[in-house]
Amino acid sequence: MSTKRIAGPEIEKLIQLLAKVPGLGPRSARRAALHMIKKKDQLMGPLAAALAEAVDKVTECSVCGNVDTVDPCSICTDPRRDDTTLIVVEDVSDLWALERAGAMNAKYHVLGGTLSPLDGIGPDDLNIKKLVDRIAEGGVSELILAVNATVEGQTTAHYITDQLSGFEVKVTRLAHGVPVGGELDYLDEGTLSAALRSRTNF
Amino acid sequence: MSTKRIAGPEIEKLIQLLAKVPGLGPRSARRAALHMIKKKDQLMGPLAAALAEAVDKVTECSVCGNVDTVDPCSICTDPRRDDTTLIVVEDVSDLWALERAGAMNAKYHVLGGTLSPLDGIGPDDLNIKKLVDRIAEGGVSELILAVNATVEGQTTAHYITDQLSGFEVKVTRLAHGVPVGGELDYLDEGTLSAALRSRTNF
Repeated sequence: MSTKRIAGPEIEKLIQLLAKVPGLGPRSARRAALHMIKKKDQLMGPLAAALAEAVDKVTECSVCGNVDTVDPCSICTDPRRDDTTLIVVEDVSDLWALERAGAMNAKYHVLGGTLSPLDGIGPDDLNIKKLVDRIAEGGVSELILAVNATVEGQTTAHYITDQLSGFEVKVTRLAHGVPVGGELDYLDEGTLSAALRSRTNF
Repeated sequence: MSTKRIAGPEIEKLIQLLAKVPGLGPRSARRAALHMIKKKDQLMGPLAAALAEAVDKVTECSVCGNVDTVDPCSICTDPRRDDTTLIVVEDVSDLWALERAGAMNAKYHVLGGTLSPLDGIGPDDLNIKKLVDRIAEGGVSELILAVNATVEGQTTAHYITDQLSGFEVKVTRLAHGVPVGGELDYLDEGTLSAALRSRTNF
C-alpha cells in the first residue's frame, strides 16, 4: 500500500489487521473495512465488542483442548454425553464439523495438529500425553481416531495406537468410502477401492 | 448451524458477525474465528481495539464524502493538493484506488453511488447537490468524472454534466483503452473499438 496518507492511520491499521484474517487479503480487507465503516452500528460496533469479549473469555479446555468460555469446556462437563467413547480430532474445526454432523454424542480430544517431522512437529508438540493419561484413568472403552485421511493424519493415528497398545481400549477410525451425494466419476481410485473393499449389504 | 451448544454463545455470536463481513461466508467465518482465538494477542486483541477505535473516530467528510478520522478529511485540508481539479468518484473505494495509483494530486468528490432508477436511487440520494455547490463557489477549473464504465456510471456522468452546464468548468472523463499489461485476445469488442478510436502516436 502507498505510504501516502489516504484516510488516517486508524483506518490503515484496521485494514492491515483485517488482511491477516484467513479468507481476507489486502484487497478484500479494504472492502471489508469500508463496508464496516458504512455499517458502524449494525456490524462494526457489535464485531468490536464480540472480539473483545472473546479475547477476555475464550480459553482452551484443560481436559480435551477444545475452545470455550469455560474450563473444562461445556462438552467435557455435559452429563448427557457418553463418557465411554472419545473422538480424537486434529483441530477444533474438526470437532465443530463433527458436532454439526451431530452423529455421535461422545466426548472429544483435540490433538492440536498432526505429527510432521518435516515441520519439526513431534509428539511433545501435540496433546498426546494428556490423551494417554485420559485413557490410563479408565472408563473409556472406544477411541475413534477421526484424523484427516492424509499421510500426517494416518502417521499420527498409528503413533497414538502404539502409545495405547498397553491399554484395554478399542481403537477405531472413520470409514473410507463414497461421500454422500458424490459422483463416482469424480472420485479418486483410492477412495473407490476403499469403498469397494468395505462394501455393505443392500 | 446446529442449535446444539458447541463452544459457548460468545463464539457463536462472533462467528455470526464475522460471516457478515464481505469476503467471509459462514464457513470462512468459523475458520477466521478459530484462527483469531489461537492468535489472541497478535490478532484478535489488536483487531478488537482497531475496530472500536474506528467506530469512535471514523466519520464522513462533510466537504467531499470521503471517510477519515477528521472532518474535513485530510485530503480536503491538504495544502499541497491542487484545488482547481476535482475528481468525482462513485465510492470511497474508488478514491482509494486512484490514490494508490498516485497519478493526480487533486481533490475528490464522493457521490456515494450511482443513479439507478430501478433501485430507486435518484439524484437526491447521491452527494450531487453538494458537488454543484462546490463548483458554484468557483475555483475549480476541471472536473474529472472518474465513474465506473457501467450504464449507471455513465448515466450519472451525463446527469452531472447537465447540472453543471451553466458553470465555467471543463468536464473530462477517464480514457477508455487497453489495460496496461492486458492481452488483446481477452478484451471485449467495446474496449478494443474505444482503444482503436483513441489511438495515439507512437
